[in-house]
Amino acid sequence: MKFFFEPKGIAVVGATPSKGKGGNIIVSNLKKGYPGPVYPVNPRYREIEGFTCYPSVLDVPDPVDLAIVFVSAQMVPQVVEACAARKIPGVMIQSAGFSEIGPQGESLQKSTKQIADKSGIRLWGPNCMGLVDAKHQFIFSTVTPTIWDTGLTSGNVSLIAQSGMLAGAFLIDLISHGAIGIAKVCSIGNKMDVDENDLLEYLIDDPDTGAIGLYLESFADCRRFMKLSRSTPKPIVILNGGKTARGAAAALTHTASLSANGVIVSGAMAQAGIAEARGFYQLTDYCKTLARYPETSPESQNRVAVLTYTGAAGIVSADIMDEHGLALSELTSATLNELQTVFPEWMPPSNPVDMWPGIILNGTKKAYGKAMAAVCSDPGVDAVFAHCFVGGFNLDPDLEMMTKTARQAGKPFFCWISGEHEHVHKFQIAAQRLGVLVFREVVRAVECMALLLNRISVDAVSVRAGNAQEVNKVATDTCIRILETQSGELNEHVTKQVLALYNIPVVEEKSVSTLDEALQTAKDFGFPLVAKGIIPGISHKTESDLVQLDITSEKGLELAIQRLQRTMQGRGSVLIQKQIDGKIELMAGFIRDPQLGPCVMCGLGGIFAEALNATVFGVAPLNLTDALNMINRLKCRNVLDGYRGFEPVDKMVLARIIVALGNLGCDHPRIQEIDINPLIVHKGLPIAVDGLLVLSGNGNI
Amino acid sequence: MKFFFEPKGIAVVGATPSKGKGGNIIVSNLKKGYPGPVYPVNPRYREIEGFTCYPSVLDVPDPVDLAIVFVSAQMVPQVVEACAARKIPGVMIQSAGFSEIGPQGESLQKSTKQIADKSGIRLWGPNCMGLVDAKHQFIFSTVTPTIWDTGLTSGNVSLIAQSGMLAGAFLIDLISHGAIGIAKVCSIGNKMDVDENDLLEYLIDDPDTGAIGLYLESFADCRRFMKLSRSTPKPIVILNGGKTARGAAAALTHTASLSANGVIVSGAMAQAGIAEARGFYQLTDYCKTLARYPETSPESQNRVAVLTYTGAAGIVSADIMDEHGLALSELTSATLNELQTVFPEWMPPSNPVDMWPGIILNGTKKAYGKAMAAVCSDPGVDAVFAHCFVGGFNLDPDLEMMTKTARQAGKPFFCWISGEHEHVHKFQIAAQRLGVLVFREVVRAVECMALLLNRISVDAVSVRAGNAQEVNKVATDTCIRILETQSGELNEHVTKQVLALYNIPVVEEKSVSTLDEALQTAKDFGFPLVAKGIIPGISHKTESDLVQLDITSEKGLELAIQRLQRTMQGRGSVLIQKQIDGKIELMAGFIRDPQLGPCVMCGLGGIFAEALNATVFGVAPLNLTDALNMINRLKCRNVLDGYRGFEPVDKMVLARIIVALGNLGCDHPRIQEIDINPLIVHKGLPIAVDGLLVLSGNGNI
Repeated sequence: MKFFFEPKGIAVVGATPSKGKGGNIIVSNLKKGYPGPVYPVNPRYREIEGFTCYPSVLDVPDPVDLAIVFVSAQMVPQVVEACAARKIPGVMIQSAGFSEIGPQGESLQKSTKQIADKSGIRLWGPNCMGLVDAKHQFIFSTVTPTIWDTGLTSGNVSLIAQSGMLAGAFLIDLISHGAIGIAKVCSIGNKMDVDENDLLEYLIDDPDTGAIGLYLESFADCRRFMKLSRSTPKPIVILNGGKTARGAAAALTHTASLSANGVIVSGAMAQAGIAEARGFYQLTDYCKTLARYPETSPESQNRVAVLTYTGAAGIVSADIMDEHGLALSELTSATLNELQTVFPEWMPPSNPVDMWPGIILNGTKKAYGKAMAAVCSDPGVDAVFAHCFVGGFNLDPDLEMMTKTARQAGKPFFCWISGEHEHVHKFQIAAQRLGVLVFREVVRAVECMALLLNRISVDAVSVRAGNAQEVNKVATDTCIRILETQSGELNEHVTKQVLALYNIPVVEEKSVSTLDEALQTAKDFGFPLVAKGIIPGISHKTESDLVQLDITSEKGLELAIQRLQRTMQGRGSVLIQKQIDGKIELMAGFIRDPQLGPCVMCGLGGIFAEALNATVFGVAPLNLTDALNMINRLKCRNVLDGYRGFEPVDKMVLARIIVALGNLGCDHPRIQEIDINPLIVHKGLPIAVDGLLVLSGNGNI
Repeated sequence: MKFFFEPKGIAVVGATPSKGKGGNIIVSNLKKGYPGPVYPVNPRYREIEGFTCYPSVLDVPDPVDLAIVFVSAQMVPQVVEACAARKIPGVMIQSAGFSEIGPQGESLQKSTKQIADKSGIRLWGPNCMGLVDAKHQFIFSTVTPTIWDTGLTSGNVSLIAQSGMLAGAFLIDLISHGAIGIAKVCSIGNKMDVDENDLLEYLIDDPDTGAIGLYLESFADCRRFMKLSRSTPKPIVILNGGKTARGAAAALTHTASLSANGVIVSGAMAQAGIAEARGFYQLTDYCKTLARYPETSPESQNRVAVLTYTGAAGIVSADIMDEHGLALSELTSATLNELQTVFPEWMPPSNPVDMWPGIILNGTKKAYGKAMAAVCSDPGVDAVFAHCFVGGFNLDPDLEMMTKTARQAGKPFFCWISGEHEHVHKFQIAAQRLGVLVFREVVRAVECMALLLNRISVDAVSVRAGNAQEVNKVATDTCIRILETQSGELNEHVTKQVLALYNIPVVEEKSVSTLDEALQTAKDFGFPLVAKGIIPGISHKTESDLVQLDITSEKGLELAIQRLQRTMQGRGSVLIQKQIDGKIELMAGFIRDPQLGPCVMCGLGGIFAEALNATVFGVAPLNLTDALNMINRLKCRNVLDGYRGFEPVDKMVLARIIVALGNLGCDHPRIQEIDINPLIVHKGLPIAVDGLLVLSGNGNI
């Protein structure tokens, strides 16, 4: 891909001397920073913007690594043909009029792609705004150049955007507001050939790129995307557009019905250690935060010291921090004593540190300087959040000194800036040059602090692990044999036999055909028992009156079986189960996602699971850490930790169940869906009490 | 209060000729716009800033309505004494050094207050930044004046802030960024005398004020605050600082333990129709939105048309709108045909409307103009969200025309602006003058749209209503008699007798003392039954093995009673209940909040209630609409609406239970707490299955 990013020479096909036209802007933009040879291509001109113009790419002399194409869509195939003949390794098509305009454009795109496939050259675009490299001042784009002249501040965040206008317009906004320093911006358009994964791979190895942000509406290959992300400690942030348009799969299990609105992709991103943003500014906020502090901090180190010039902002910050799972540092007495030296006697400092009395006494610079030093040397402070004001009240801080203090102490430093418009703008630009994370809103700063301090590292590769390694060949073969004899929806008894082969804890149960057999089972299991009527094709047993709970005596068992037999009218069989009592009912499942393939789910069971959105998804196969991380992403995880006197759930057992579910699905391609519902937690251990496994195809029946 | 806002003459006590000092800034600020007489007071000078200076307020000639005081704290009492003697009706103390600095300041504050109480004059402050009236250019404040000179853009939002620095600093930020147009800003400081309710009452009647925003850390009288808000259709927005510091009451019921972190205040605000903001910018965003569109729209009119210059922003907006409960309008074919006239043939328009092809064809102004007209005349569009870009791509829109179109159609109009820094700033200033709601971030715009479109009106007064009106004197008297004989925690049987007197549906149950009695009860009720052991002082029956469920036969009943008697060892009595089955378990309760007095709660029951924060609070007494609104604020309300094939919950019955619980607590002051847990929904009707009522004092025992 280097020929796109550091081309030795560039041909501009469709170049024109007409100012303001795209074919001219590309050439003019190249003049601003690109030091290599530029070859405008247009049969109608001899010279454009001071460069010799060539009638065709075939006439362009060496060296030429890259052709930037801006001609009408219809002409693109013949230009690409010529580029292939000229052996130009990279072609960047900025023209529009391809798949985005419907069937006609789609066929044009297909035929263009075929030319590239045959010749081995790579195509970037079409329908894109190209590439900007702020460090080298390379602008391979039709984007209007006003902003480039006033200063393209470079930084170490690179962006990939599946939207031309967004890459162009939003970049202008970001840079002119001093919001972020940019390394490279790649507008990938229709992803005819070069896609986000190719660019991601390149940027992961790019020394100028410290963090990568992506806006994507579709994935070329989401599994590869995850793998690339796991392969590097370099932070990656994604804004995944169009989630709400993604409906749930029409399917038989709860697991499938819970899979709408991008929750599977969200699970996949989290599993791969990719941060997910909800909007454009959060995408860039997250990128600049992680580019500045790329290391992951150990879990639960989430204690923040707040320095503020107004108590109210300190109070509101604490509220917002609490909402985001951050805590206020409890400052040590050494720190408090140190703070006291700049405070009036009547005011004992606390966190949030209301600096105002200290500022009155010592001035802003001294008060903030001392306070920064004090909180930065406190071992109970994991990050510092300073509120600054410029343009009034003599509050202008010495940002450089504060930054230096934080850097020396190795503490992440976040700053909220407000004040008079022009002063604020200058402060933002200065902060950006100093590499300080400055935000215009407390909420945005806190969101980034939470992202950083709650961030965990993921394993570089997801090796299939855990439970599965213990599944021996005999069990696997047994499983294959069972599945071969089945089709469609398996009844709960067979489902649990399969689950048990993968070491998933299931309730003790036995299918019985006589009362004697039932009574013997009762002796073996002990009371209380549950009796269920199993009728082929009926999976909603409760609604069909096929469940008898709380059987506590032999007489009761007899009555229950009689009742079931009356209901079944000779159609089914009776299943006797040990009754499992537990206050916490979970749910777990497996699904094949059209995009991601085998996926697993776990979460809160019962009717509120969906209503309260208390489930999470992961991509199979998973390792144990993946599964534990999944569990920790659950909104109801405090319940699992032994909430209100309940016994805590053994998370390792739950993680092994999730891993095993994924492995089961991966091993047997006919498995379409699995529900374990409920997965009742009994004395801290989750046990599958009911289950539904759905197969595709007919096996060997 | 008019003497504070429109004083006929102003004395400035502590005035000084020293530039930059507070006592000089006040006088200089008055010169900028205040047309009435200004009387500096300071025995050391004859003249300050061109005004005659007086040695004491006693020497100040008429008219003088207001004294602004900026002297050292110790001198304040004697100044106030003099003001009282001079009969100056309003005194605004801007000096600090009172209750905010500890015990010494507190006693100073108390003695100052006593002087005012005796004389009847009103005190504003101390420790405040005073008052700014942008329309009249009145600046009664020590806030540095740079910003006032460059233009104090007036508008119709008034703010009340319990924080001096915040009122001053944040105001400078807001105004200089063109974020909001201000009517009045009141910094209320320590609220020694004049408090938020006094100012709220004044601003509700102020014709220049269209919406009122408050930052409060404490309430002078929260009930009065609610009453004032309900008395006016004028929108009120609050940012309630310090929520997370408010712990739950140490108490016996779930209701009490769920009352932490300001959830009761949040419930109270919602009940009074007050919008609650989470941060400073959201406070002002909400204020400007509601000041612009003060009418409440009918419920569920939440359909938005999005006009964008980039498909990606349209997609992301739709995602964020979905998260906030907003829908995309389904445009009529007439609208789509109208849009098509500015679009190329190959692109059929849809919502979000990606304007880019239309812009290429017709230019921004024509394309956006036509599109605005089309969506504004669509009956399925409740609001329009337009994305605008300035400073490149020839995208500058004709904001004035778009605004006019929206205004004529009576459709709320929201705009997201991005682009080059200086252009954006100018656009914001222009938009503010035009009265257009412009936001720098999609998320912030969507939050405001959601606020506006989901807003409901509340009744002007909360008349005690519903169930209670049916509680006749006999029932009330019976209730009094029962409570007189009890103290502390009432057992569930007595609790339910009390609940039943207030027409709260309770489970059929009977306390029995013999097996025969139990068997007769079984005949009356029918199986299945529950038997419970009632032991005085033991409220956790399940944990103490005092509950026998699923009794389905006379034999089973006998066994169950035997078991309970073994456990109780002669200490208690047996309660036989009809077993109520239902998938939905709710919870309801009553509590006396130290701040708000009698309050009610309802929500999801079980262990996940607290973990998932699925409960809401209200302030008693409530009317039926209040109670129904409470239910609609529940996060799990979709479950109540008949989710996944479950029978919907009769919300009117649930609302009557909530109303009755509040009335019960209000009627009987000894009732401290009530829990109904669970409140099981059986065939759509909630029934109290277990309950705990806690009394204070000893009654007549």
